[in-house]
Amino acid sequence: MEISHRGQTVQASPIRKFKPYADAALKAGVKVYFLNIGDPDILTPKPILDAVRGFNDPILSYGPAQGFLELRQAIAGYFNGYKIPLTAENVIITVGGSEAILFTFATVGDPGDEIIIPEPFYTNYNGYASLANLKIVPLTLRVEDGYRLPSAKEIEAKITPRTKAILLCSPNNPTGTVYSAEELERVVAICAKRGLFLIGDEVYKEFVYDGLTHKSILEYEQVKDRVIVVDSISKRFSCCGARIGAAITRNETVYQSILRFAQARLCPPSIEQRAAIAAYKMGLGYFEPVRKEYQRRRDVLYEGLRSIPGVVVQKPQGAFYMSVRLPIKDSEKFVLFMLNDFRLGNETVMVAPESGFYSTPGKGLDEIRMAYVLNEEDIKRALVIFKAGLERYKSTVEK
Amino acid sequence: MEISHRGQTVQASPIRKFKPYADAALKAGVKVYFLNIGDPDILTPKPILDAVRGFNDPILSYGPAQGFLELRQAIAGYFNGYKIPLTAENVIITVGGSEAILFTFATVGDPGDEIIIPEPFYTNYNGYASLANLKIVPLTLRVEDGYRLPSAKEIEAKITPRTKAILLCSPNNPTGTVYSAEELERVVAICAKRGLFLIGDEVYKEFVYDGLTHKSILEYEQVKDRVIVVDSISKRFSCCGARIGAAITRNETVYQSILRFAQARLCPPSIEQRAAIAAYKMGLGYFEPVRKEYQRRRDVLYEGLRSIPGVVVQKPQGAFYMSVRLPIKDSEKFVLFMLNDFRLGNETVMVAPESGFYSTPGKGLDEIRMAYVLNEEDIKRALVIFKAGLERYKSTVEK
Repeated sequence: MEISHRGQTVQASPIRKFKPYADAALKAGVKVYFLNIGDPDILTPKPILDAVRGFNDPILSYGPAQGFLELRQAIAGYFNGYKIPLTAENVIITVGGSEAILFTFATVGDPGDEIIIPEPFYTNYNGYASLANLKIVPLTLRVEDGYRLPSAKEIEAKITPRTKAILLCSPNNPTGTVYSAEELERVVAICAKRGLFLIGDEVYKEFVYDGLTHKSILEYEQVKDRVIVVDSISKRFSCCGARIGAAITRNETVYQSILRFAQARLCPPSIEQRAAIAAYKMGLGYFEPVRKEYQRRRDVLYEGLRSIPGVVVQKPQGAFYMSVRLPIKDSEKFVLFMLNDFRLGNETVMVAPESGFYSTPGKGLDEIRMAYVLNEEDIKRALVIFKAGLERYKSTVEK
Repeated sequence: MEISHRGQTVQASPIRKFKPYADAALKAGVKVYFLNIGDPDILTPKPILDAVRGFNDPILSYGPAQGFLELRQAIAGYFNGYKIPLTAENVIITVGGSEAILFTFATVGDPGDEIIIPEPFYTNYNGYASLANLKIVPLTLRVEDGYRLPSAKEIEAKITPRTKAILLCSPNNPTGTVYSAEELERVVAICAKRGLFLIGDEVYKEFVYDGLTHKSILEYEQVKDRVIVVDSISKRFSCCGARIGAAITRNETVYQSILRFAQARLCPPSIEQRAAIAAYKMGLGYFEPVRKEYQRRRDVLYEGLRSIPGVVVQKPQGAFYMSVRLPIKDSEKFVLFMLNDFRLGNETVMVAPESGFYSTPGKGLDEIRMAYVLNEEDIKRALVIFKAGLERYKSTVEK
C-alpha cells in the first residue's frame, strides 16, 4: 500500500519546511527576523477588520461558487481604475490566489501537459503542478541579467507539442523584476502565434517602485481570449490569512471550466469576502503610502546587501522580494546554520533558500530569497546579523 | 487553443446548476422552499459568531499550513470524546471538507487510478475525481434495499489493479443511510486483505437518529494505517460558509503527503479557525437538541413523502438527506418545471435531481435528493407544494 507518485514527489515548501527550526529558536527565547516569507507587517486596513467584526448574519451559510457578486464587481472596478475593461462576469472568487492557480492549471492542461515558466519562480507553482500532474518547463534567468526575459527564439525553443501555456509573474516573486512592455509583448506575440494560453500572476500589481507603472497582460487585445490572471488580496491589503483570491478571464470556455471546478468546493469563505468588499471600497488611493513604505525598505535592504563582499544582487523594481546570490555553496545549510547555530545578541535572521524556486536540479543552491516585509529599523538590524552570520558561516561551516 | 479534457468534462454541480432558475423565481417575487442543498437553517452557534466578531489581531496573517495547533488539538479532543484515540499530529486543517477530499484523492492515487464509491454519492466527489484525474468506480445501490452495501463478493468484483481505495460516506449524503458495524467490517476486511486505503467521509457524524450511534472507520485497529477521514465543521456547527475542514490519518506517509499539498496553498482561513476552536469548546452536549430537531424534520418529511402515490423512499437513519424515487422519467426536467412553471400561492419548491449523484450513466434519472434543512412548518408547506407540483408535472409535462 503505497501512496501516489505525486504524493511522494510533491515539493515540501522551501519557505515553510524550515519553520520548525525557527519555532525552536523562538521557543528558546531567540529573536528571529523573518525575511523568509511574504507575510507583511503592514497593518491590515481597518475597513477589513471592521467588516469582520461587524459580521452580523445569524447563519454563516454558503455563498455562490463564483463568489459574491458585489466582490466580483469590486474587483472588476479595481481593474477598471487601471483602465482595464473587465466586468463581474470575468471574475471568479477563489480561496486565495492559490486556488486560482490550481483551477487555472487544471483548465489549461491535462496530465503530462507543459507550462513554461521563467525560473526562479514562486515555489508553490511546483506544488500545484504536482497536484494537477502538469510539467513545468523552466526558462532559466540569471541575477546578472537582472532576471530579464530571454529572446523570443530562446523562449520558443522551450515549446513542445505538449506546451499549453506560458506563465509570467510580474512584479515577480522571488526576483522583484517588473517586466517591461517590450518583454510582455514578446511573450504575447509568441502565445498568439503558437496558440498558447498566457497566465499572469500579478498579485503584486501595486508594488512597483521608482515611478514605474505596472503593465498587465490583460491590456493586450490580441491575446484577450488567451489570458488568465490569478489574483489575490493577500499582499494587496496585507491580509494573507483571509484566503481570498480570484481567477480573471475573458474566455468564456475557460471561465466555465474554472466555475465547475469551483462548484465542487462549494464556495470561498463568506466572511472574508465581505471584508474584501470593504477593502476595495478604499479605492486606489490606499496604495500610495504603502508603496512608498516598501520602496524605502527595498532601498535599505538593497544598499545593505550591496555592501557585503561576494553578494550579487540587482535592484528590483517591484513586489517585496529580492533574489540574492551568496558566496557560498549551499544556502539550505546556511539557513539552518542561522536558525540553529548563529546568534548575535540572542538574535538571528531567517531567509528562504532559493533552490526550491527553481525546477532545474542544482540551480539556486547559492541563492536565497529575502522578503522586505519588516520595517526599516528591523531590516537594518537584520542586515547586521545577516552579514555577521554569513561571515561566520563561511569561516566555519564552508571553510 | 482548447482547454483541457478534464476542464471540458468536469461535472457542473447538479446542486448548483439550477441556481440561476431559482434566482429568477426569487427575483419575480416567488417564495422558494430550498430543499436542494445542505445549507441548514439552524442558527450558527453564538460562540462561533462571537469569535469572528472578537477577532482582534492587528494583522490578518498566514497561519501554519497544517492549521492552528489549538484547533488540531480541539478536533483530536472531539474524537477522543467518542473514544477514538487521536492526537493533533493526526489532524491537518483544510479549507472545508472539500480540500480534504482533494488532498486525499491526490495522495492515494495517480491519474488513471481508481476509487470505489457506493452510488448514489456526494456529487462533488465527481469534481475532485476530474481535478485529480482519478476514476470513480461506482458500486450501485438501490432505494429498495435501503441503500445497504452489497456482499463482499460484489464489492471485491469491482477491484482492479488500479484500485487504490474504497470511500464510504456514513451517515450518507445523499441517502441518509448509516452503515452498520457489520457493513463497515465487511469493507474493512476487504481493504486489509487487498491492500487498499479506506477513505471515510463522516461529516454528518452527529446526525444519527432513533438512538443509533455512529461508528467511525477510525475505530478499526486492523486498518489503522489505511484510514483517511475527511471532516468538516460546516454541518456539525451549521456554518457552511466558514470553509474549515480536516484530513485525519494515523499514517505518517499519508500525513506528510497531505501536508506538502497543504503547504502549496499556504494556510486555511485564520479567522474561521479561531471560530472553530470556540465551537469545539461547546462540547458534545451541543449536538443533542440539534439532533432532535433534525429527527423531527426527517419524520415529517418521510411521512409526507410516503403518502404521495408512486413515491419510493426509505426512512433514513442519519445526515439530513433523503434519496427519493419519483414516478417520473426525468427529474431534471421536473426540477426545472418546479422552478420555472409551477406555483402554488406564488410559492414553489427546489430539490436536487439525483442523476448527478451517480457516475453510472442513466442512473438516478427518476430520483431526487431532498435536504431537510428547513423547519417543520416549512417542510409541511413544501410537501403540499411538492405533491401538487408532482401531480401537475405528471399530468401535463410527462403525460
